[in-house]
Amino acid sequence: MQAPKTRKIKVNYNTGEHLSPWRESLNDIIFGAETQTGKFFDIVLIIAIAISVLSVMLSSVDAIHKEYSKIFFYTEWTFTILFSVEYILRLISVRQPKLYVRSFFGIIDLLSILPTYIGLLLPGIKYMLIIRILRLLRIFRIFKLAEYVEEAETLMTALKNSSQKILVFLYTVLTLSIIFGSLLYVVEGSDSGFTSIPKSVYWAIVTLTTVGYGDIAPQTPLGQIIAAIIMIMGYGIIAVPTGIYSAELIKSYYPAKISNDACPNCGKIGHDTDADFCKYCGGSLAEVNE
Amino acid sequence: MQAPKTRKIKVNYNTGEHLSPWRESLNDIIFGAETQTGKFFDIVLIIAIAISVLSVMLSSVDAIHKEYSKIFFYTEWTFTILFSVEYILRLISVRQPKLYVRSFFGIIDLLSILPTYIGLLLPGIKYMLIIRILRLLRIFRIFKLAEYVEEAETLMTALKNSSQKILVFLYTVLTLSIIFGSLLYVVEGSDSGFTSIPKSVYWAIVTLTTVGYGDIAPQTPLGQIIAAIIMIMGYGIIAVPTGIYSAELIKSYYPAKISNDACPNCGKIGHDTDADFCKYCGGSLAEVNE
Amino acid sequence: MQAPKTRKIKVNYNTGEHLSPWRESLNDIIFGAETQTGKFFDIVLIIAIAISVLSVMLSSVDAIHKEYSKIFFYTEWTFTILFSVEYILRLISVRQPKLYVRSFFGIIDLLSILPTYIGLLLPGIKYMLIIRILRLLRIFRIFKLAEYVEEAETLMTALKNSSQKILVFLYTVLTLSIIFGSLLYVVEGSDSGFTSIPKSVYWAIVTLTTVGYGDIAPQTPLGQIIAAIIMIMGYGIIAVPTGIYSAELIKSYYPAKISNDACPNCGKIGHDTDADFCKYCGGSLAEVNE
Amino acid sequence: MQAPKTRKIKVNYNTGEHLSPWRESLNDIIFGAETQTGKFFDIVLIIAIAISVLSVMLSSVDAIHKEYSKIFFYTEWTFTILFSVEYILRLISVRQPKLYVRSFFGIIDLLSILPTYIGLLLPGIKYMLIIRILRLLRIFRIFKLAEYVEEAETLMTALKNSSQKILVFLYTVLTLSIIFGSLLYVVEGSDSGFTSIPKSVYWAIVTLTTVGYGDIAPQTPLGQIIAAIIMIMGYGIIAVPTGIYSAELIKSYYPAKISNDACPNCGKIGHDTDADFCKYCGGSLAEVNE
Repeated sequence: MQAPKTRKIKVNYNTGEHLSPWRESLNDIIFGAETQTGKFFDIVLIIAIAISVLSVMLSSVDAIHKEYSKIFFYTEWTFTILFSVEYILRLISVRQPKLYVRSFFGIIDLLSILPTYIGLLLPGIKYMLIIRILRLLRIFRIFKLAEYVEEAETLMTALKNSSQKILVFLYTVLTLSIIFGSLLYVVEGSDSGFTSIPKSVYWAIVTLTTVGYGDIAPQTPLGQIIAAIIMIMGYGIIAVPTGIYSAELIKSYYPAKISNDACPNCGKIGHDTDADFCKYCGGSLAEVNE
Repeated sequence: MQAPKTRKIKVNYNTGEHLSPWRESLNDIIFGAETQTGKFFDIVLIIAIAISVLSVMLSSVDAIHKEYSKIFFYTEWTFTILFSVEYILRLISVRQPKLYVRSFFGIIDLLSILPTYIGLLLPGIKYMLIIRILRLLRIFRIFKLAEYVEEAETLMTALKNSSQKILVFLYTVLTLSIIFGSLLYVVEGSDSGFTSIPKSVYWAIVTLTTVGYGDIAPQTPLGQIIAAIIMIMGYGIIAVPTGIYSAELIKSYYPAKISNDACPNCGKIGHDTDADFCKYCGGSLAEVNE
Repeated sequence: MQAPKTRKIKVNYNTGEHLSPWRESLNDIIFGAETQTGKFFDIVLIIAIAISVLSVMLSSVDAIHKEYSKIFFYTEWTFTILFSVEYILRLISVRQPKLYVRSFFGIIDLLSILPTYIGLLLPGIKYMLIIRILRLLRIFRIFKLAEYVEEAETLMTALKNSSQKILVFLYTVLTLSIIFGSLLYVVEGSDSGFTSIPKSVYWAIVTLTTVGYGDIAPQTPLGQIIAAIIMIMGYGIIAVPTGIYSAELIKSYYPAKISNDACPNCGKIGHDTDADFCKYCGGSLAEVNE
Repeated sequence: MQAPKTRKIKVNYNTGEHLSPWRESLNDIIFGAETQTGKFFDIVLIIAIAISVLSVMLSSVDAIHKEYSKIFFYTEWTFTILFSVEYILRLISVRQPKLYVRSFFGIIDLLSILPTYIGLLLPGIKYMLIIRILRLLRIFRIFKLAEYVEEAETLMTALKNSSQKILVFLYTVLTLSIIFGSLLYVVEGSDSGFTSIPKSVYWAIVTLTTVGYGDIAPQTPLGQIIAAIIMIMGYGIIAVPTGIYSAELIKSYYPAKISNDACPNCGKIGHDTDADFCKYCGGSLAEVNE
């Protein structure tokens, strides 16, 4: 869900200053998606990121790692060098390098190459390469390539418009989880696995969201009755965010575009907010609109 | 979801009587959210409640409790004294103290300080402090601070309008759970964990709401077929509350554009707000519209 | 969800024939909900059913049954006699007794009293009383008492209108479950618990509906990848019945009531389907409507 | 969800060329659903497929297979011969046999008979018959028989229109699962079952989709906090596809009432279909409307 963020950031670090022609065209290729080469670069980058992430994921499987440790070694270095070159090219071609370095994607781009170099100095540091997985977020930029931008934007606008309502909803869910979790801690006690309130709250979230691992489950009749209430509540209140988001999306399709102002000529209401003239008598709506 | 309730309660215990100027301004700070100081007080209170609830939660973790028992002791007393002062200030500044004491939040406010004092007289009483967690509900008042009121109200109005439909739905869910739970008690028997009808009904609720702990699960083919039917039913009927709530929210955005005015000629209602002539008798609606 | 059915059945067995005055008023009390006494009878019946069902449920708990076996014995006989009297009164006051006896609720009413009598002749028959739980369905008649009728009807109409779409959806869910279940039977084999195709299909339903017991779970990487696909599918296609039902409910609130016919006088379209006269020029729409 | 595909494929392999009369009527029966015999053939085929699939499923249950191995042997051969005859008849009566053989259903039809014949040459090959289950997809053709076509088409059109938005959504779900799965791999480690990143990603999908098997579950406090965040996210973002699909279906019911005609005076479009005057320049729209 970084698409709009990306664009805002880009406004920050890739605007203003004029560049020399070759840096300008490098900028178009690396940061833009309008030119043929720019699209091609984006696709190649996405594929490179996907392969590097897959490689990081597979190398965490012990059996595979032992079998193909050499391949993983070369893959890691290949992508580290590739991404290092990409990072340097970005630094060269971006309009405001300092802003880019401090930007969200600038930091991720750097973090995805650092671990391999640090591993040279401090061998034995595990896990660090995993941070490269964050580069996956770059893929959200690919939506720029196709008609996905508009789609993503509709979704994001509806999300933004409903975010306050969803925050109220999330807060309610959390409060319910804390109160019901504490209740079950008192009712069930440590014997059924409700060893502390935080753990009981965790259980309440697992239950309310209908995930239901079953690693902790109430054993007493009273505990099971309360659990059943939580479940039915969780099952029912999923309707709330869904309703909020559905209504918001529908609103974006059918803007309530009826003005409340009456036509000064014929006195009728029900005009579109963008109407200049009354649709019933043809009189001017200029006064009303100003 | 206490926001509207709070406001109704406030109407009860904080209206009518005039107060002396300093109590009036104390009232504005403690019960109001319109003044700068009132907002500040609300935020400080929310933070204090959050910390005190966090402290109660963490102190239930054995390992942490042993390590930091002293800190928990001081935290408990600090918040008890703070909340006691707050309670006394509320009593002083509220317009109708008796109504406040008996109100929902008045009782919670008192219950959140009593346990510590009772603990002095009757040491060894566990769990009692947990009741302080209920003060979390106060946080719903913070929605008064920002533009969240309107959001919360839209949500609540839609909930209220759909509450009868949702009750019909909940009753159906419960009946289905009881009937299918009993059926599986007969089909599966105690060997698979269906030791009694209440327990089988509990299992049916766990399954219908798609929580699915797995602590009880059917073992016989017939039991699994019935379980599959319950699952698909539960998966499908989640559409019902979601549909109800979505439709209700959309209704609140798009009021039906039907005028309430009767035709002066034939007396019928139900005309579009932009109709010039009665759609039943053809009489002019001009008088009505102007 | 029997509400509309009940009404249809009632049309069958409680219409036509005239009754003697006292049977007529008995009919009003027992089958109707318009009179004061009729409402009172319905409420008493609902409470009696609820208590009898609760008693059946609790008596299935071994510990409780041993402790209070006498109370359960008396409760069973009390309700059996009460329900027998009710059944006889229904037979007397109903307009078409034969149709009532063969009706859905007639059969349930009889089945809820038979087990106790049969138990006299054939002691040792367990479980039979459980059939009394089906009387819970009678409670759906209580919705007649209040304004719930309208609510229930809106829900049912929307369900009926969307039933064909939901059948298509259910069939798709079932086909997906059978195909993916068979696939996992081949991929996983008996070692992970996928001992037969029916069991694997059961697992696929448990997974697709997001219930997720965890009693059977894929162990091989390929099995887990396919399982992840099923999960994401199940998570996504829940949108389909929800969307269908939401759209159907919204349609019931906002009937698309715009006729496609033009006014023969002024030629304008966009008239309500129930309009007799053009709302723009007042000309008659009679020709168009016929 | 093959319904529209079927129709497209049919356009491919069953159009163009004229057939001799008897092949034409055979074609009507086998590929068409307009004639009485064609409908009858479709129903018989569906029943045959259902029984053959049921037989394949049951024969995978060891206990049943041992008991009734002879019946399964005869059932397999009966359906193999029946389906072989059907396949040959299809080859004879189809307009473009080569296209049919290479089509999706052509391949499935062949695959459903091959295993039995191959079993004659290479006995001991298990599982192969299971491919016959894919013939279930043929049942989607039955929707052609009744009014289900329209229903299925509305659903499919809405799905197609929302497919890009749903792809964006699915990609987001996958990215979140990979990032959060990797995070839990680092936080939890192998002791809690998070033995590799792919397995942790699998767990994240199980959790985000609210399936929640519980075979792997976080044990550390930090892991449980992150898991709680994933759950609440999964619980909340289910609103996104549901909202998308609901909005799309509603759009299909309520086409925007905006006319496509331009104002003859100023040339602007976007007028209500019932507007008498251009809302931008006040010019009469009379010509356009008539």
